[in-house]
Amino acid sequence: MYPQDKALQDFLFETLKNVAVLFGFASYDGPILEDIQIYLNKTSKELVEKQTFQVQDKKDQTLILRPEMTPTLARMIAKKAGELTFPLRLFNLGLRFRYEAPQKGREREFYQADFDLLGSAYVLADMEILAVAIAIFLSLGASKNDFILYLNSRSFMEQKLEGFGIGKKDMKTILNLIDKQDKIDEPTFMKLLQEVGIGSSVINDLQSFLTKPLSPAADPYFTRLFSYLKNYGIDSYCQINPNIVRGLDYYTGLVFEVKEKGGTMRALLGGGRYDNLVSSFDSKLSIPGVGFATSDVVLMEFLKEKGLIPKVKPNTSQVLITVLGEDMVPSCVEIAKLLRSNGISCELYPSSNRKLDKQLKYADRQNIPFAIILGPEETQKGIVKVKDMKTREQKEVKKEEVVKILKS
Amino acid sequence: MYPQDKALQDFLFETLKNVAVLFGFASYDGPILEDIQIYLNKTSKELVEKQTFQVQDKKDQTLILRPEMTPTLARMIAKKAGELTFPLRLFNLGLRFRYEAPQKGREREFYQADFDLLGSAYVLADMEILAVAIAIFLSLGASKNDFILYLNSRSFMEQKLEGFGIGKKDMKTILNLIDKQDKIDEPTFMKLLQEVGIGSSVINDLQSFLTKPLSPAADPYFTRLFSYLKNYGIDSYCQINPNIVRGLDYYTGLVFEVKEKGGTMRALLGGGRYDNLVSSFDSKLSIPGVGFATSDVVLMEFLKEKGLIPKVKPNTSQVLITVLGEDMVPSCVEIAKLLRSNGISCELYPSSNRKLDKQLKYADRQNIPFAIILGPEETQKGIVKVKDMKTREQKEVKKEEVVKILKS
Repeated sequence: MYPQDKALQDFLFETLKNVAVLFGFASYDGPILEDIQIYLNKTSKELVEKQTFQVQDKKDQTLILRPEMTPTLARMIAKKAGELTFPLRLFNLGLRFRYEAPQKGREREFYQADFDLLGSAYVLADMEILAVAIAIFLSLGASKNDFILYLNSRSFMEQKLEGFGIGKKDMKTILNLIDKQDKIDEPTFMKLLQEVGIGSSVINDLQSFLTKPLSPAADPYFTRLFSYLKNYGIDSYCQINPNIVRGLDYYTGLVFEVKEKGGTMRALLGGGRYDNLVSSFDSKLSIPGVGFATSDVVLMEFLKEKGLIPKVKPNTSQVLITVLGEDMVPSCVEIAKLLRSNGISCELYPSSNRKLDKQLKYADRQNIPFAIILGPEETQKGIVKVKDMKTREQKEVKKEEVVKILKS
Repeated sequence: MYPQDKALQDFLFETLKNVAVLFGFASYDGPILEDIQIYLNKTSKELVEKQTFQVQDKKDQTLILRPEMTPTLARMIAKKAGELTFPLRLFNLGLRFRYEAPQKGREREFYQADFDLLGSAYVLADMEILAVAIAIFLSLGASKNDFILYLNSRSFMEQKLEGFGIGKKDMKTILNLIDKQDKIDEPTFMKLLQEVGIGSSVINDLQSFLTKPLSPAADPYFTRLFSYLKNYGIDSYCQINPNIVRGLDYYTGLVFEVKEKGGTMRALLGGGRYDNLVSSFDSKLSIPGVGFATSDVVLMEFLKEKGLIPKVKPNTSQVLITVLGEDMVPSCVEIAKLLRSNGISCELYPSSNRKLDKQLKYADRQNIPFAIILGPEETQKGIVKVKDMKTREQKEVKKEEVVKILKS
């Protein structure tokens, strides 16, 4: 990741951090190398066994390179629950790893931003989390035509499936199949449902349910959530979609995904409510939570596809101090010291035998806006020349006034 | 890393980034999982074999969790040398991993900041790098009494050792022994020197050389470097020390370390000149470089020991919007929307059945400076109450003036 790409990543990171600040989320972090135990039973087994990099530490414990942040967060919350103040709004921006062959939009190492609101089971917390998700896309310059937030509820789905006659024991399997629908074709989906052992009338009911749009009136939870979303003015970004169930086992209520409108079906952001996750680390604790994650890789692809990549440039000095011969070094070094101690970023050209035009050409290529020229003649007069690299104008300035001129 | 510690780490990261900006260094990054090949022959074998975490990717290639950044940087420079503009100032702040039992000041995962100046073999580039190193400590609030920068030159040392009669074949071994001196006692050091097969008169010469201080007059390189350091006003932070050689094989000239004055002997920062590293990736290229690295773990310990830990607090909202009953939610949500769209960070208390004093207590505990109180009475009057949590004063403010009041 060369400076130009890094500058773009930094723009994305700054945007995410600014949203965190605006919504009152505090930064935290955890280890990259995590004990494998915290993922087992909490994340889908597939993710742990097939999709993570594993290493042994010096005590022969198995560590994995964290594939996601939520289990780490739940462990951390469980450990210090007594000292923390709830409701708690937490933000992490950090590396995640997945053991897979790299493909478009899926890298083996990438950054994820996680936003979590802990300590409230109230619908208003769900609305706040959805507002954060939408704020990210709006801050990145996207509009209603670019993205949509699909949402659903795990508890609503479980009720619904029960109503169709699906028993508790098949619930998880059926929800996982619904989650995988967009990766398989219709006949395969049907075949897999049959294999679970569900009757064809139940399959028909399920099929027709999954293909029909749902209105907020479908469930009191949705009704209330949508009234809050409407109060916030973001209901039109959201749509209830019975096909959204999310792959992770720990979700209990709201589940949601942001998808690109008219683009790939890959989720740009995903999350939900996980009311029992903290208690799985300490059964005496009952700390509900709701949150989501999004990654730099998918967001960057989204921005590219929508033509939303901003013009950013890598950091460069404000001033190049040219060095015209060994004799001039002391004066040049003093100017560098003077500028930096006044907060003006600058660099000394690190060669004394390169001609002035070569040095100025370097300033041009690096987009450095000003150059200071300081030869024997200037030293004698007690001045320096300040050259504006854009206009090519140069001014003779008294040494002691350089800072003032450059700051104006 | 809970919010309080993370806020402290963020302060450190910001300080490092600000120094990078001031000296014109552009940010870059590389992968955490690196091909093991780029370390072999370039780093000490010990580091690669014993001190790194290794994983296999899906193509059965061995990857290691990067223990340092310089080989990645050299590979990246070699790959795009034709497109890059030199001299090039590069900065990375990222994770590094070491396979070792965690101990004080040495964690298995930590952040390192790397500063590198590529494309100049000139002494002024060495001075600039040393100025950056010193600027970091001064920016962190440290003074001359807290730290010292020891420097030496690999080429000077090689000449010197040759002068004592040490042959080319023993050079690397002897330099490595000098590097390890502070971890072993005097008799062990002597014994190990004898084991290399060096005569006792040579050992005596070496011993007496290593224990005597060196002045800048010892070598023309030092003379010139110190004259530049003096021009910059930082010569008094620096001292030539023949015992500093650094452990990595790729250094060719300047080597240096910052150490705590009157504290542990552990280096707080270390680096040097590596003029042949890029050509080891592409023999047609000759791109000299000089740089250093420092880590969050050692810097944080240094700040603690010197009482330089600043008061920082995790991010919190500027305003808590209290929610006094389900009926009030629409008005509260509208206020949240209004504040955020005006750049004022705020949060909705995510419960409607908690008493006002409980909600205000939460604002106190989270250090949230303002609370907005909005009950049925206020709604009727078209106002909100803005409470200053420090002074406990509260003002009645018209809804449309809330933003103005909070921004003033």
